[in-house]
Amino acid sequence: MKDLNPRAFRHTSVLAGLTDCIVGELGRVDELFHAELASDLRCVSTLVRHVSRFRGKMLRPSLVLLSAKASGEARAEHITLATVVEMVHMATLVHDDVLDEAELRRKGATINHLRGNEAAVMLGDYLISHSYHLCAGLESQFASRAIAAATNRVCEGELLQIDNRNNLDLDEETYLEIISRKTASLCATCCVLGAKYAGANDAVIAQLETYGLSLGTAFQIQDDILDIVGDAPTVGKTLGIDIDKGKLTLPLIHFLRTAPREHRALLKSLLTGAEPDKGEKIRNLILPSGSIDFARERARKLIDRAQAAIDTLADSEAKHVLDVMAEFVVNRPM
Amino acid sequence: MKDLNPRAFRHTSVLAGLTDCIVGELGRVDELFHAELASDLRCVSTLVRHVSRFRGKMLRPSLVLLSAKASGEARAEHITLATVVEMVHMATLVHDDVLDEAELRRKGATINHLRGNEAAVMLGDYLISHSYHLCAGLESQFASRAIAAATNRVCEGELLQIDNRNNLDLDEETYLEIISRKTASLCATCCVLGAKYAGANDAVIAQLETYGLSLGTAFQIQDDILDIVGDAPTVGKTLGIDIDKGKLTLPLIHFLRTAPREHRALLKSLLTGAEPDKGEKIRNLILPSGSIDFARERARKLIDRAQAAIDTLADSEAKHVLDVMAEFVVNRPM
Repeated sequence: MKDLNPRAFRHTSVLAGLTDCIVGELGRVDELFHAELASDLRCVSTLVRHVSRFRGKMLRPSLVLLSAKASGEARAEHITLATVVEMVHMATLVHDDVLDEAELRRKGATINHLRGNEAAVMLGDYLISHSYHLCAGLESQFASRAIAAATNRVCEGELLQIDNRNNLDLDEETYLEIISRKTASLCATCCVLGAKYAGANDAVIAQLETYGLSLGTAFQIQDDILDIVGDAPTVGKTLGIDIDKGKLTLPLIHFLRTAPREHRALLKSLLTGAEPDKGEKIRNLILPSGSIDFARERARKLIDRAQAAIDTLADSEAKHVLDVMAEFVVNRPM
Repeated sequence: MKDLNPRAFRHTSVLAGLTDCIVGELGRVDELFHAELASDLRCVSTLVRHVSRFRGKMLRPSLVLLSAKASGEARAEHITLATVVEMVHMATLVHDDVLDEAELRRKGATINHLRGNEAAVMLGDYLISHSYHLCAGLESQFASRAIAAATNRVCEGELLQIDNRNNLDLDEETYLEIISRKTASLCATCCVLGAKYAGANDAVIAQLETYGLSLGTAFQIQDDILDIVGDAPTVGKTLGIDIDKGKLTLPLIHFLRTAPREHRALLKSLLTGAEPDKGEKIRNLILPSGSIDFARERARKLIDRAQAAIDTLADSEAKHVLDVMAEFVVNRPM
């Protein structure tokens, strides 16, 4: 499970400051989340409590609710939809926590704080099943179709990422394909569902979809930057995981394309080696290069695109928050 | 991955002999299964091909199609529904294949023939996501709700089973609770969906639900019996898995309740020990006792109940096949 610590909640509170206009709705999402996951089996309830360890910034529910309010009116369905996307997101976090053979061998059995891989798999399945169940309770099939289409893409992104583990030749295009499916597709779906169920017209729905897709992609690039150069207590989770898992991210891809030959060779040997402090060494190698800035600029451009996409929406507090939230994604504390 | 071998397909062919009246529909299910899982990503297609290793008797699609024909008319929706339940079932098989720390340590990294636990998790997620996606394409929400409610119960059954791993005090009631949720609930849902979309009335739907629930429970008891006393090449999969995984099943539960004290002590020491031939020793200990027969009788009574449940349905070839199929469940080759 990802490490959480009190400082991690700084983000939550910064974001909470942003999202005052949906704070009541987010509370109802939280209630529905727990009500839907309740079980008459004690062992299930115990495991579900572990899930709270993963709760974070409620980014995806916020996207649903803000998109609704920026394009129409938030309705009862939006509470359901916001809960559904949070469950889907939590399921992916729980399944990301399932360890591979190599990791198990390296880290021993202590790392999975749950009850082993099998329980983590089933708990993730329980979350995803309940998300679909909740969604199927809505009157129209629109959301069920959109959510399932998004999870199809999320799985494809994850499978493409696994397929490219330890691939030092991964190119920027494939990296963007991975994060667009794995992360951005669900964010885009959040915005589409928010707008659609608020009664927005197709043009507005498309604007918010572009916003969600661009924001989600930028969010993942920024997450990948922080994994290399962030300060673990500030970011609020264990860093260096991408390197540990053999996942090449944008700064590394850029570095391997542009750095002097001997630097590239050094990075490759660090990435394929097993030195205990390799994360630190890679950080020190990458930092003085332009590769972090390159990735930051990519994220910045995506945020500009997200902000431009919603520029013509009628002014509202929700639209303002979507705008500021986009800014926050690339200016999170390091 | 479970071992498959040519003799395993004896079952398939026996069942195929039974299911001549739905052979055309099963072929369309197979086509839809592959069409829905197609991906533009090569790595995804490669993994999906691995899934065919798990294809088996098509029991669940058969239940959908036969329930439809026994209570009304099989329609286009039934092909979709039969494909959906097969995908759900395959997802659970793929996720059951994810190994726990202890197993990995014991068996080494060779056991998971896929690309490791992570890929198995994601491939299962891909299957479940596509099953919901396919289901959400139907006009009414009824099936989406029923499938998600069933998968909620399947996950609960699996979590309850994991919670009772290595619990030598597991009682019959909890065992039945586990297999009813884990296995029988999806079989019951297959029958309900078959009948509902064929236009059957509520009484007939309830009859077929009872049939599916009883048949599914008996099927799992028989599977658990074969895990102890079956002949691996005939059964067509690796046996002794329950014992390896610390899962107590009905014959063992009965034995631990009724056998002479010294026999019980011997079984407990075998179950908790790590002898390489413990499966063989447990088999030799259990076989002469009445515990296998006890479990067989339980399964037999459930099959009687399944057959009685559909007794008043109008005569049809499909009804006849459901009746014979129930018999087949408890009289499978050993």
